Amino acid sequence: MTAARNRQILLASRPTGEPTPDNFRLAEADVPEPGPGQMLLRTVYLSLDPYMRGRMDAGPSYAEPVGVGAVMEGGAVGEVVKSNLPQYRPGDIAVARTGWQEFALSDGTGVQKVDPALGPISYALGVLGMPGLTAYTGLLNIGQPKPGETLVVAAASGAVGSVVGQIGRIKGCRVVGIAGGERKCRYATEELGFDECLDHRQPGLDKRLKAACPKGIDIYFENVGGAVFEAVLPLLNTFARVPVCGLIAHYNDADLPAGPNRVPLLMRSVLVKRLTVRGFIVGDFAAQYPDFLRDVGGWLREGRVKYREDVTDGLENAPDELIGLLRGENFGKKVIRVGPDPTRG
Amino acid sequence: MTAARNRQILLASRPTGEPTPDNFRLAEADVPEPGPGQMLLRTVYLSLDPYMRGRMDAGPSYAEPVGVGAVMEGGAVGEVVKSNLPQYRPGDIAVARTGWQEFALSDGTGVQKVDPALGPISYALGVLGMPGLTAYTGLLNIGQPKPGETLVVAAASGAVGSVVGQIGRIKGCRVVGIAGGERKCRYATEELGFDECLDHRQPGLDKRLKAACPKGIDIYFENVGGAVFEAVLPLLNTFARVPVCGLIAHYNDADLPAGPNRVPLLMRSVLVKRLTVRGFIVGDFAAQYPDFLRDVGGWLREGRVKYREDVTDGLENAPDELIGLLRGENFGKKVIRVGPDPTRG
Repeated sequence: MTAARNRQILLASRPTGEPTPDNFRLAEADVPEPGPGQMLLRTVYLSLDPYMRGRMDAGPSYAEPVGVGAVMEGGAVGEVVKSNLPQYRPGDIAVARTGWQEFALSDGTGVQKVDPALGPISYALGVLGMPGLTAYTGLLNIGQPKPGETLVVAAASGAVGSVVGQIGRIKGCRVVGIAGGERKCRYATEELGFDECLDHRQPGLDKRLKAACPKGIDIYFENVGGAVFEAVLPLLNTFARVPVCGLIAHYNDADLPAGPNRVPLLMRSVLVKRLTVRGFIVGDFAAQYPDFLRDVGGWLREGRVKYREDVTDGLENAPDELIGLLRGENFGKKVIRVGPDPTRG
Repeated sequence: MTAARNRQILLASRPTGEPTPDNFRLAEADVPEPGPGQMLLRTVYLSLDPYMRGRMDAGPSYAEPVGVGAVMEGGAVGEVVKSNLPQYRPGDIAVARTGWQEFALSDGTGVQKVDPALGPISYALGVLGMPGLTAYTGLLNIGQPKPGETLVVAAASGAVGSVVGQIGRIKGCRVVGIAGGERKCRYATEELGFDECLDHRQPGLDKRLKAACPKGIDIYFENVGGAVFEAVLPLLNTFARVPVCGLIAHYNDADLPAGPNRVPLLMRSVLVKRLTVRGFIVGDFAAQYPDFLRDVGGWLREGRVKYREDVTDGLENAPDELIGLLRGENFGKKVIRVGPDPTRG
């Protein structure tokens, strides 16, 4: 191991608008040696998620930006190689925020052991991990779905949206997805059991959405923003709930869109319809992780929740794949296989 | 009584932008006779409130618009003149939505008896009525004030804002008011006990607000919109709450303001700061009326909540006074004395 090198992807420069490949840089470092109270993890699967675009900016957000020249941040499933921590042994599988690199040290903070018996270990980055917990806690705590209500989910085939919609169905809602392209829409209705799914790339989204929601919209799970939100707003019912978990349509925006300023219109809707618009991130509901594992893990085993991954091999492909993710080019949860999966033959 | 006439103010036409006197028309009708299950009320005090501007428009809102040619809607405190209802006797005082007229029939629906022992009977239109209940329920249920937090209240000297700020003080918050003009601001700090109050008519509101809220803003009680909201938004803390109860700055808007479109900026703040933006109207919390009367009635008796009315005599002055109210020309809760108050000598 001492002769081995640790390939890493660094943030080379901050993007303006859409990231480009030269915002990233592939580098090599020595594989570090764990000191007392540390362990060494080898990355098996790296998660790519829309929030990463925000970390590339200098502006304030709910987390610190990645420094220029620093390793890109991200969650990953790894295998313990060496451990000076009593609770971890070589061969253990764990999920941790170890970033875009092949090896990383950890003192165990924020690390969760992964039980390979629950499913493929990469699921800890998706349906059984952060995106799944985001879907579960945002929908149940803020969305508060009731039988017979109409739930609209944007990015319906994505890591979060696909779980939101399936939980909505389990809770008795009429679920209408919105996705980019006919293939993703067919997947949402035929595989995931959504009642309808609309392709936002086709014209007339507002009219088609109105037709798909004859009783209006009670919950809009917002992870997109932009034109989809504008189509949803007039259809929201009195007392509708809008959990705001992401705004992927705006992550690459360098400027605000042209006028008029529609804030008064939005606020008037909030008042007149007594809407609840509430932002959240997954950490706000971390205490519900055991409930989530029990419920979503159970639904997954029973086949009531389905899950699709979009796996690409090779750390060096992560920049292009993140750029594509922000354009909606992925189909299912985007994962980079950085090294061999020890649980698969 | 049979020869008496009932003066009424009708909606003559729908306004575009700011209402003008010719949107209203003074008319006379016979004083009606109560049938079985009805009573006749004589209006003593008519309440003028910002929401009335919304009822003059045809567009959809949380309540039906007033029809052109119909009596303007509004809450009023009246004296029972005749009654065929077992629970009401002549001389009783009651608050009811009897509108802009001197006499009205009622079948008792939505009527509350007023106890003159609790305070001046006109208070049932303000601190002990709809505006007070709005302040109490919106602040406690949505704002959820905690000791040491910073609460910002727009329209600080108004019927709702003045009660919001005083309850905020009782709950241990730092309370910063915003009002139009130095006189209203002095009243908020010197009489109502606000920690600070800023005049939004002076330049540099954003800078002065920042200086007045060194620890940011945890609760913004929104009843104004416009420039005040824009100054508040960057100062909101993580997990801040924004109860939306009114948008008086926009009620006369005929068009949306010029761009850029700031909706993405607002939604990004909602996400990044995990804000809760929630609209409500007083009826949503009607079940808390007994708690409200106990708490706010008690604080009023103890002198911990103060209240100011701005009384004008004569039903014929109601249109001009509503126009002035929408311009912020009132100072305290606006009430029209339509006829003699039987509880005052």
